[in-house]
Amino acid sequence: MDEKPKPKDLIRVLCDKFAYEGHLIPRPDSDDGTHITIKLKSGYDIGIKKEKIKEIKILQKAQDKPAKTEKYPFDTSKPSLTVLATGGTIASKLDYITGGVNSAFSANQLISAVPEMKEFANLKGEQVFNKFSEDMQPKDWPKLAMHAYNAISKGINGIIITHGTDTMSFSSAALSFMLKTPIPVIFTGAQRSSDRGSSDAAMNMIHAALVASSSDISGVFVCMHAGPSDTISHLHWGNAVRKLHSSRRDAFKSVNRPPAATIGDEGVKIHPKAKKRGGEAEIDTRLCEDVSLIKYYPGMTSQYLASLLNGQKGAIIEGTGLGHIANSLIPVLKQATDDGKIIYMASQTVHGRVNMNVYSTGRRLLKANIGSCRDMTAETAYVKMMCALGREKDQQKAIQIMDSDLAGEFWDCTPL
Amino acid sequence: MDEKPKPKDLIRVLCDKFAYEGHLIPRPDSDDGTHITIKLKSGYDIGIKKEKIKEIKILQKAQDKPAKTEKYPFDTSKPSLTVLATGGTIASKLDYITGGVNSAFSANQLISAVPEMKEFANLKGEQVFNKFSEDMQPKDWPKLAMHAYNAISKGINGIIITHGTDTMSFSSAALSFMLKTPIPVIFTGAQRSSDRGSSDAAMNMIHAALVASSSDISGVFVCMHAGPSDTISHLHWGNAVRKLHSSRRDAFKSVNRPPAATIGDEGVKIHPKAKKRGGEAEIDTRLCEDVSLIKYYPGMTSQYLASLLNGQKGAIIEGTGLGHIANSLIPVLKQATDDGKIIYMASQTVHGRVNMNVYSTGRRLLKANIGSCRDMTAETAYVKMMCALGREKDQQKAIQIMDSDLAGEFWDCTPL
Repeated sequence: MDEKPKPKDLIRVLCDKFAYEGHLIPRPDSDDGTHITIKLKSGYDIGIKKEKIKEIKILQKAQDKPAKTEKYPFDTSKPSLTVLATGGTIASKLDYITGGVNSAFSANQLISAVPEMKEFANLKGEQVFNKFSEDMQPKDWPKLAMHAYNAISKGINGIIITHGTDTMSFSSAALSFMLKTPIPVIFTGAQRSSDRGSSDAAMNMIHAALVASSSDISGVFVCMHAGPSDTISHLHWGNAVRKLHSSRRDAFKSVNRPPAATIGDEGVKIHPKAKKRGGEAEIDTRLCEDVSLIKYYPGMTSQYLASLLNGQKGAIIEGTGLGHIANSLIPVLKQATDDGKIIYMASQTVHGRVNMNVYSTGRRLLKANIGSCRDMTAETAYVKMMCALGREKDQQKAIQIMDSDLAGEFWDCTPL
Repeated sequence: MDEKPKPKDLIRVLCDKFAYEGHLIPRPDSDDGTHITIKLKSGYDIGIKKEKIKEIKILQKAQDKPAKTEKYPFDTSKPSLTVLATGGTIASKLDYITGGVNSAFSANQLISAVPEMKEFANLKGEQVFNKFSEDMQPKDWPKLAMHAYNAISKGINGIIITHGTDTMSFSSAALSFMLKTPIPVIFTGAQRSSDRGSSDAAMNMIHAALVASSSDISGVFVCMHAGPSDTISHLHWGNAVRKLHSSRRDAFKSVNRPPAATIGDEGVKIHPKAKKRGGEAEIDTRLCEDVSLIKYYPGMTSQYLASLLNGQKGAIIEGTGLGHIANSLIPVLKQATDDGKIIYMASQTVHGRVNMNVYSTGRRLLKANIGSCRDMTAETAYVKMMCALGREKDQQKAIQIMDSDLAGEFWDCTPL
């Protein structure tokens, strides 16, 4: 072997008795290193034990043409936007050799792929991460917030963050709490990869760019399809939105409030509660990672719940209905709050407010010092608690933060 | 103290310096027994340390009139229904003295409260439990299934199960797997207690009784309001329904399929996939309780996930999007399946199918022998796994049950 084969190279593998020809498949993280896998011309994958391999010949080197990056002249008459790219389906394309969807487009390639955006804005791309959003972790949120803060400090008019859809609402909630922004910071993504004819990437990016460049609105938002066709998008509040379908283009829905804006052929209609542009940018990225999000279910035992809380500084319980768990588990939560942890109750109904004053179970939870997430989603409450405990180690002070409205996450009235 | 005061008695408590008059409030389970609590005439509650109390005088004994139970003659021309009552809001009334909602109505009192049902059916009540549904546990499901089976064996035409709404969809999924029924078994409940003018209890019970007595349909269902007003109900498939609002009357929604029937002024419209009446009743109530339902979130560590799986025979992971978790956690799940546990992937998007063939993360999960919940809700999959492991201890045989359609829980095509 003169040269080591690289993924996607067409190779010939000579073993004791047989020889195989096919494209080398990238080694998955979970692989233990004892095999190589190639995709045969028949389309089937075959794993070959390394110890059986006599020789590997590279028949043809893989040629991945990089997507074209066009340069556009800076136009002083147009607002300027920064696109922070983090990966996800929007930055992916189908790999017709291995059959999977892989990260492929950089920030600037994404901008080049949607030239319509340049009609109304100067765009500059920054690659922050390149990963699927199921791999985004809390430690990634401060870095993303800092990139946004730096762009704001340079006087940019708006920010677009391209992101995988799976955990987008966790990241948008995190930035809503970490970043006080005088301009719009808009997450967007795609449910179909950008190289496919059916992709929702282009409209999502165009609508995000339209709001980011020209609307008098500030804060952290999510811009995604409002329906199945390419006509209308919704701008959701960054900390009151949830992915509520595994595959539909209009998977994202505002929870417990109407969207912050509707974007379509008739322009941008903004909700009156949206904040206008202006003010100073501020950033606070402190996080405590010793927080869990625990979904209650019938059959959860006291012992099991206690083990889930062990070693944590706080937890969000996703209870049933108005915010309940089995009465037999309340002493475990009481012990946790007595021990200095902070415990808040959300609801697994997704929609509707938590209200622990209606039933005796709820009132017992209140007496055990369990806080109410009110109209926050469990996901938003989880991210907020990490921020609260990052800022204040003291139980009572962290509770004060949890009960304060930091970034529009509490609405007094939940529209039915 | 000649006589010990009972909850709701009007009492006079004499302490060192002061005397208090008010109604004694029932002692919560979480109370440590060092205080008594009374509701003052002002409406405020006050806790008084027992050690400071010199004397308690009962000024007036509480008088709880039992709700009237009427007897109706048996009419041989009408079908017969059994009402199995388990408690919940539908069986509750506001306690105007203590301000809470308490269990109050028995099965027969509930029947008497909705006389419209008797126009088209003979009704007989059985009290199975009297608890809020957040306190229903897996051990309660076999008992409920056995009551239904016994009623079927007596030749009854339909069964109504009144149940709290918080965990109704867990119980209805359990009965769908435990009970093969030739007649309709219909769960119903209320979002507002039955003694309130705004209660949804009456329409839900009338519509449930209408379907149970006269429709040519069999299986386990949930009958609840389809909209906010008292006009139309939906009959949901018992293992494809979820409470998706904490307070609305139309909180229940069918997931990944249309409802099994719509009930309104124009009669009952039944979905063509619904099974007709007939066949033999069968029951299998075996359950394994060593199963967990684990919701993934960014920040969940390998160590934490491993501790959640420790001691369990199986788990449902509520992943993101099409069925994903962070790639860094996949080895933990691989170890679990290698150890003989069964692990299945559902989605926290609630709506839409799991599909682990689209992205590399999903394909790695499949290689780690993680099963797909397909179009089942996480809750249904959790209950099904308890039944599967109750019936088969062997990993591969339990997996075969998980991948089989036991009670209509798999639909090949998910309507968008």
